[in-house]
Amino acid sequence: MNSFPESINDLIEEFSRLPGIGRKTAQRLTFYILKQNTDKVNLLSNALSSVKLRIKDCSICHGISEKDYCPICLDSRRDKNVLCVVENPQDVFVFEKTNSFKGMYHVLGGVLSPLDGIGPEDLNISSLLLRIQSGMEVVLATNSSVEGDTTSLYLTKILEEKDVKVTRLARGLPVGGDLDYIDEATLIRAMEGRTSV
Amino acid sequence: MNSFPESINDLIEEFSRLPGIGRKTAQRLTFYILKQNTDKVNLLSNALSSVKLRIKDCSICHGISEKDYCPICLDSRRDKNVLCVVENPQDVFVFEKTNSFKGMYHVLGGVLSPLDGIGPEDLNISSLLLRIQSGMEVVLATNSSVEGDTTSLYLTKILEEKDVKVTRLARGLPVGGDLDYIDEATLIRAMEGRTSV
Repeated sequence: MNSFPESINDLIEEFSRLPGIGRKTAQRLTFYILKQNTDKVNLLSNALSSVKLRIKDCSICHGISEKDYCPICLDSRRDKNVLCVVENPQDVFVFEKTNSFKGMYHVLGGVLSPLDGIGPEDLNISSLLLRIQSGMEVVLATNSSVEGDTTSLYLTKILEEKDVKVTRLARGLPVGGDLDYIDEATLIRAMEGRTSV
Repeated sequence: MNSFPESINDLIEEFSRLPGIGRKTAQRLTFYILKQNTDKVNLLSNALSSVKLRIKDCSICHGISEKDYCPICLDSRRDKNVLCVVENPQDVFVFEKTNSFKGMYHVLGGVLSPLDGIGPEDLNISSLLLRIQSGMEVVLATNSSVEGDTTSLYLTKILEEKDVKVTRLARGLPVGGDLDYIDEATLIRAMEGRTSV
């Protein structure tokens, strides 16, 4: 008996498919699960199935929602003239937590990444273009990574033809950031984007 | 909308109960799950419930088993005179993988840990004593940690009264270990336990 029973192997396999979880961690999690009582394990198992049953894409912004449209898209008090374009559904919550942005969102569902075979047709770009209205401001809020910047550049090119103001998030020192610990690229951007006091 | 829908919060909560998974990782896993198709998520969800349904404690050694008794306890070719006492069910597989130990196992189900409120009555010690037969060798193979050593010491005291030979795993240099990288405690043990060539 030098291999685990099948059901244990299955669970190790499934755990190790999760991002950032290697085989050793998957094994540790599996034996942890075995030690827990069945009710507790069912809570996790049910939470997994129920999240897939209950959460859908908002038909307008592609953010997560428990209904056809998400609360933000349905909120009449929000500024429909500012559209913040983000990579992932969770990014919406990052902005919402600040309580300072009062416009709308559009979730791309990823970034352009030719190496992973992700092209413009795999992102929610056509639905973005349908939402564009003359005079609008589009804030490109992709991550500050190579793929994020590429995607922003691609969208800027497309949006150039439309009558919209395209903006992007400011690059610079994070609040509370110590100059000693800031990478050069950020420092160069912070200097380039310096503002008068 | 600055908090996630309930079903998402539930899943984050459940993921963060797992060992080594903090809130941020739990959130990342949850959004990863949301991106997967339902069939894949159900594989994980079903693997979780089925492992709890199918795996039980072996009634003899308390190791994991899909039946009442595990294959090792049922194997008549194994040496019933050597009993290897381990902390956790997974430790059995660690030894089995070496293909060199041919005795039986006994799983304690943990270690003595007064701070966590784990005393002798919480471990499978009474069932261990029932398996002890005169002339047997008992190998104490708990981890080389403070709790593991304490548990070994406790068992040694109890087993002193019985007519058994109590042994423990050798401490020393790991095979392939470089002297430069060995901690002092291990080196002291290795020197103390030196053997003639």
